[in-house]
Amino acid sequence: MTFRLSRILFASVLALSTGVLAGSALADGTRETGKLPIALQIYTMRNAGPLEDQLKAVNAAGLTAVETFGKIGDLSAPDLKKTLDAHGLKVTSHHSSLADLRANVQAVIDYAKGLGDDTIVMPYLPPDLRPANPAGWQALGIELAGYADVLEAQGMHLVYHNHNFEMVKFGDKTALEILMDAAGPKMKLELDIAWAQRGGQDPAEFLAKFKGRLFAIHAKDNAGIGDTKAGSMGFISVGSGIVDWAKVLPAANASGAKWYIIEQDDPKDPADAAASIKASAGYLTDHVPVGATR
Amino acid sequence: MTFRLSRILFASVLALSTGVLAGSALADGTRETGKLPIALQIYTMRNAGPLEDQLKAVNAAGLTAVETFGKIGDLSAPDLKKTLDAHGLKVTSHHSSLADLRANVQAVIDYAKGLGDDTIVMPYLPPDLRPANPAGWQALGIELAGYADVLEAQGMHLVYHNHNFEMVKFGDKTALEILMDAAGPKMKLELDIAWAQRGGQDPAEFLAKFKGRLFAIHAKDNAGIGDTKAGSMGFISVGSGIVDWAKVLPAANASGAKWYIIEQDDPKDPADAAASIKASAGYLTDHVPVGATR
Repeated sequence: MTFRLSRILFASVLALSTGVLAGSALADGTRETGKLPIALQIYTMRNAGPLEDQLKAVNAAGLTAVETFGKIGDLSAPDLKKTLDAHGLKVTSHHSSLADLRANVQAVIDYAKGLGDDTIVMPYLPPDLRPANPAGWQALGIELAGYADVLEAQGMHLVYHNHNFEMVKFGDKTALEILMDAAGPKMKLELDIAWAQRGGQDPAEFLAKFKGRLFAIHAKDNAGIGDTKAGSMGFISVGSGIVDWAKVLPAANASGAKWYIIEQDDPKDPADAAASIKASAGYLTDHVPVGATR
Repeated sequence: MTFRLSRILFASVLALSTGVLAGSALADGTRETGKLPIALQIYTMRNAGPLEDQLKAVNAAGLTAVETFGKIGDLSAPDLKKTLDAHGLKVTSHHSSLADLRANVQAVIDYAKGLGDDTIVMPYLPPDLRPANPAGWQALGIELAGYADVLEAQGMHLVYHNHNFEMVKFGDKTALEILMDAAGPKMKLELDIAWAQRGGQDPAEFLAKFKGRLFAIHAKDNAGIGDTKAGSMGFISVGSGIVDWAKVLPAANASGAKWYIIEQDDPKDPADAAASIKASAGYLTDHVPVGATR
């Protein structure tokens, strides 16, 4: 507790000096993870035993919101919602593939509604669906705008999630910028900070290009190579790697982030997954700008 | 041959339009890998059988220069030189650890001289030797400048090779810039393009910061995630990933690169290693600026 308090005091002093926490209501020096806009992409826990075990670890990290993906545990949406409710977990958003959107967008919408969710995120383009040139990225943006229209008519929102390959540049623009420009303002962005960095972007500077277009960030860190605490893909908990979070978090807030969604693609085992999300949640609890309240 | 020729013609047209190949003497349309400043970090072949097999694959890729590391095959420097000479391979430079420099810089110099080499590259800082703050990076730069002085007195040169962790920023400067500034002009840089990108740098823009300080680039590419041709660490042959080589290669030339050194950290097997270096050598042969002659 003393340690945690001193971390918070340090964060507060830092924040006051930068203005990040100006207006913070946390006069008693405590911040509660579960009351802040911090969530977890539950994919992180996919190899951490049965769903009940996964959700206990999420609770142990103090989290009260998750982002879902695919069909977790082959449960129907209402059954999954009941399970999440029993653990006090709200759904921030749901990851659904481009193939599923193409096959039956209404089925995707109905599943998300069943979770009590109003936001659908297109999370990953498999290699065979990736455009090879600006015209292809524009065409994809226009196609996604079509789904965003269908969603909007039912009170839902569409969001795009990046990896590294959208950082490919055509002239001075990345594929992601071309895509977002073509899709227009109805489609928002969930910027994966670690993948953006791996694609050669300074994540804080890159966030500034999406002012008003940001739904959330995926918060994970890139380990310095050789760090034995990292997973097989070189990811590590937030604050333990090479990302400059003191710049990234205020930049995300300034661009409109509603959520700071923890993800760790490659935990070593269930214990590592649990420890990693707890470390990330602790770091974000101390550092997330308070301007971004739930 | 027709295919290769058409690639070269395409590259030439592209280059004429950008001025990269202006002044090229390749009037007959052919470029020979072995006569261009293209080399291989032989570490790439470490798991590709006995040294003889490794060097046959290097020859098969058309390469006539290698960068060495550590003590290959536990051979003495003269014995290794004989083996390389037998394969028509010149040594561009030799990778030697900070621990070895600290323990006995003269032994490192003597080994390099035995290879007929005049350039020593410090290739990797293990986690326990990495500075945590600007003062630490400055101190390391000053220490390395001391070794550079010792080398220079014997006609040798010191070079630093980066990974991703030197892209950590302190204010607006990366650790690598702080290090290079502190070391001063005697220490040159071998910029690993793929690692710089993974650290959040646009490699072409970053190269421009090291005008006159560049010895070489390490040429490898970052695969878009999910590319099944990539190795376990996500690296892929030059021109097959997300690096913008049309900008990187002229930028390297403008900053003074003497060598374009192929590296692939994670080939799947010996056949993949051989195919990867051949693909990288082919791409560089078609695209390396001719201004950078051997």
